[in-house]
Formats: sequence, C-alpha cells, structure tokens
Amino acid sequence: MLFIADNLQITRPSVARAFASGDAHFFIELARSMERAGANAIDINTGPLPKNPQKAMAFFVNAVQEGCSLPLCLDTVNQIAMEEGLAMARHGRPIINGVSLEPSRFRAMAGLARRFDADIIAYLLTQEGRVPTDSDTRLALAANLFANLCDEGILPERIIIDPICPPLAWNEGPAQARAVLETLRLLPDVLNFPIRTVAGLSNLTSGLRAPQKARTAFQNAYIALLCKAGLSLALLDIFCTEPLNTARACTALLKPGVFSWDVF
Amino acid sequence: MLFIADNLQITRPSVARAFASGDAHFFIELARSMERAGANAIDINTGPLPKNPQKAMAFFVNAVQEGCSLPLCLDTVNQIAMEEGLAMARHGRPIINGVSLEPSRFRAMAGLARRFDADIIAYLLTQEGRVPTDSDTRLALAANLFANLCDEGILPERIIIDPICPPLAWNEGPAQARAVLETLRLLPDVLNFPIRTVAGLSNLTSGLRAPQKARTAFQNAYIALLCKAGLSLALLDIFCTEPLNTARACTALLKPGVFSWDVF
Repeated sequence: MLFIADNLQITRPSVARAFASGDAHFFIELARSMERAGANAIDINTGPLPKNPQKAMAFFVNAVQEGCSLPLCLDTVNQIAMEEGLAMARHGRPIINGVSLEPSRFRAMAGLARRFDADIIAYLLTQEGRVPTDSDTRLALAANLFANLCDEGILPERIIIDPICPPLAWNEGPAQARAVLETLRLLPDVLNFPIRTVAGLSNLTSGLRAPQKARTAFQNAYIALLCKAGLSLALLDIFCTEPLNTARACTALLKPGVFSWDVF
Repeated sequence: MLFIADNLQITRPSVARAFASGDAHFFIELARSMERAGANAIDINTGPLPKNPQKAMAFFVNAVQEGCSLPLCLDTVNQIAMEEGLAMARHGRPIINGVSLEPSRFRAMAGLARRFDADIIAYLLTQEGRVPTDSDTRLALAANLFANLCDEGILPERIIIDPICPPLAWNEGPAQARAVLETLRLLPDVLNFPIRTVAGLSNLTSGLRAPQKARTAFQNAYIALLCKAGLSLALLDIFCTEPLNTARACTALLKPGVFSWDVF
C-alpha cells in the first residue's frame, strides 16, 4: 500500500490562512514534512477556486514541488485549475482527483487525463453524485466508469478506482465500510484487470465526537482490512503515524518475499 | 473476538518471584487488573510444576478466583495440576490449554476434558510436536484432532483450535502467519462445524529486538487480519491496549448490527 498525504486541504484553517496570505514558505515546509513522513504523493485539495484558478493552482504546485519531489494528486473540480496543475507537474506522473459518471465532470476530466496521459481517480458515485449503498451498485458503477474511460482512450493502468468510504457516523456507515471492502476484493475479477484502487481514510472517523483512542483504533482496524482487501493507495493524514504503521506492517505481513521489521 | 489474558506466566520474572515467595496478594491484584483491562478469561501458565503440582495449582487458582470472576484457562502439561485446577474452577467453564496429537498428552488431556466437561484448546502440532509449515498441513491436523476428540466423547462446541502462530522472527515466520490466516478462514468448512479458534498474539513479535513501534504495528496489523479471518479468541498481553483496541474496533466494524464508538 502506498500513501497519498491529504494534509494540504483548503478546508484546514492553517492551510486557508497560508493561502490567503500567499505564504509559499508554509507550503514548501508542509510538502517537505509530508515527504519526510513517508508520503508517496501529495494531494493538493484547493477547493473549487472560483477566482483566479490558474494563478492559485500555480501557487500551490510551485510551492509543493519546491518542497518535495513527489508526484501530485490534483484535487479540484475546477477544470482550468486542473489543467494548469497538470501542465506544471514535473515529478512523475500527476493524478487527477477525480472523475465520476456525472456527465460534465466526466467529459472535462477524462479529456484532461487523455491529453496529459495522467493517472485519474474514478469515484464510484452515481450520475447524480450519490454514494451507493452496497457493493453490487459500486461494482456496476465501476464497470460502467471503467468502460467509459477506456472508450475515451484512457489506458486501464491510468485508472484508479475510489469506492468511496463514507464516515462510520453515517446511518449505514459500518455496512458501507464493509461494502467498500467487498468491492475492493471483487474489482479485479469484475473488471478482469489488476485495477489500482484508492480510499480516503480520514473520512472514516469524521462527523462524530468520538474519543481519540476510538478514532485511532477504527483507523488501525480499517486500514488493515483495506490492505487485506487489496487497496493500492490510501489517502490519509500522513502525520497520523499509527494507522500508517499498521498499514506498513500489514503490507509487509501479507506480501510474500523477504521480511523485515524495518518497514517504518 | 474475546480476549484471554496471558499475563500470568511463570516465565515472567515478577510472576516467578511472587510464586516463589507465596505472595497470593500479587496474584489477586493481577487478576483484578486483568479483568478491569477487559479480559474475558485468565490464562494460568504455571510451567510443568515438577514439585507439588496440586498445591501449586491450588495456590494460583485460589488467588485468581479471589481477584476476579473470569473463567480460567489452565495452561500446563502437568496432568495432576490440570486436574486440580479443573476441580477447583468455579467461574464458568474452564479451558484446558491444551491438547495435541502427541499420544500421551492426547490421552491425558482428552480424558480430563471429558470428565470435567471443560473447553479444550487443540494445538495444530504434528505428533512429534513440530509446528506445521503450511495451511494444508494445519487443516489436515485439525481434521484429525477434531475427529479424535469427538471420538473420545468430547462435544464439538468444547473444542477450540489453535493453529499455532509462530514468531515473525522465524525464517518462515511471515509465511506461517499467512498460513494461520488461511487455516482460520477455511477451518469451519473443512470441519463442517462453526469451530471456535484461538491464537497467541504475544508470540508474534518475540525473539527479535525489534523496536517497540514495530512490535505494536505488527500486532495491530495481525490482530485485525486474525479478526477478519474469523478468530474467536486471542491470547494476549491484556495490558497492551493498542492491539486490544484494534481488535475491538475490527470486531465492531465487521459485525452487522448496531454500531457504537463505545466499544472500549
């Protein structure tokens, strides 16, 4: 399992403040810390960027690429910002985060993925943007989305499926969490391709005032189950070391080959 | 998943000292703490007790039963001590830990299990006491042991299979850890019975000077995988809260029904 750091989110007050004041140093240092903490890629979640999308994305990308040498995961619905980020990305292949079956979004993002030969995260959401309630619906959406993206000329190996992991605090949260595991397990067979997958872990324990030890325990438990189910990439708080270490240990345990304690 | 505390082990220096000096208070307090920490049963690992086995076992059982109201898991190869412990057990059904296909041990322990209608842990070891190297051998041993115990008149629901989880530090440790998971997953089908299972977690990270965070991470990862594979009982250090909480979270996540953060 590889890790995409989700710490650069415009919804975080410190990030919003640093962005508002044009504090590039903040983002250079943040990127440096995320790489040091073990990130394999950096999610740049800019929000919709209604004003100056190009300039804003350029600011983030410049700072992050100055601070580290990791690939970028560009996380915005703004097509202009996405295009700017893709054009500027210079460390490995960038990831578009992301596309769904929603028609306008599909056209925009699939087009960019093809043009830039980028990786692209495909959300298993309905055309109306709703989270499906079971694994059968998720698998049907995956087959549909995968076929549509391939029809657009995108290589299967560029596609990364996100089965959408909802908060446990939702009514059907735990059942959904199990549906996500089932979906991950079955996807390669359903698509007849060793598809890559991603899941956002930070969502899992959001929305309820659970005690910290409960949050940590559920993240530890779920990341191990995701690993067992074959998840390729986890999008998470890279500074939250316990689930990170659990995932590393799980990966080392489950992978045949030379074993080492030294996976941290 | 339920927890058997393995903290009362004669190999631990503090336990050995308290036993040597006849310090019942130490064991009463230890039992109290183990119950408070969330143990569902207490393993009393006395070693072979070459001298005064009856008196020694009576000392342990009296103290533990004074300190808590949990069932006992009697962990000795000494038949006389085992018999004494079973005769004295008064909180729920005691567990014999345990039996294997080794002929003399099988006869002694199976006989006691039948006489006292006790639960009995059945180790998947070869007749020569060796740890099997793969899951096929483990499953064959399980089928053999299960059939032999049933032939002795022991009820299937009294039998608890221990697939033997070796230290990761062993040459084949990680492959064995995976074989244990596979064995747990397949056992109910192979035996055609919803068999209960137990695994010792403390073993996993013993025998190598791995850093503490590595030990914790591997225990977190493996206990989640054991839970997913259907393990009924974990034998572990009940004061090591992280893997315990991971197991609780995992059990809550995987079990359909009412969900609560409040599982700790």
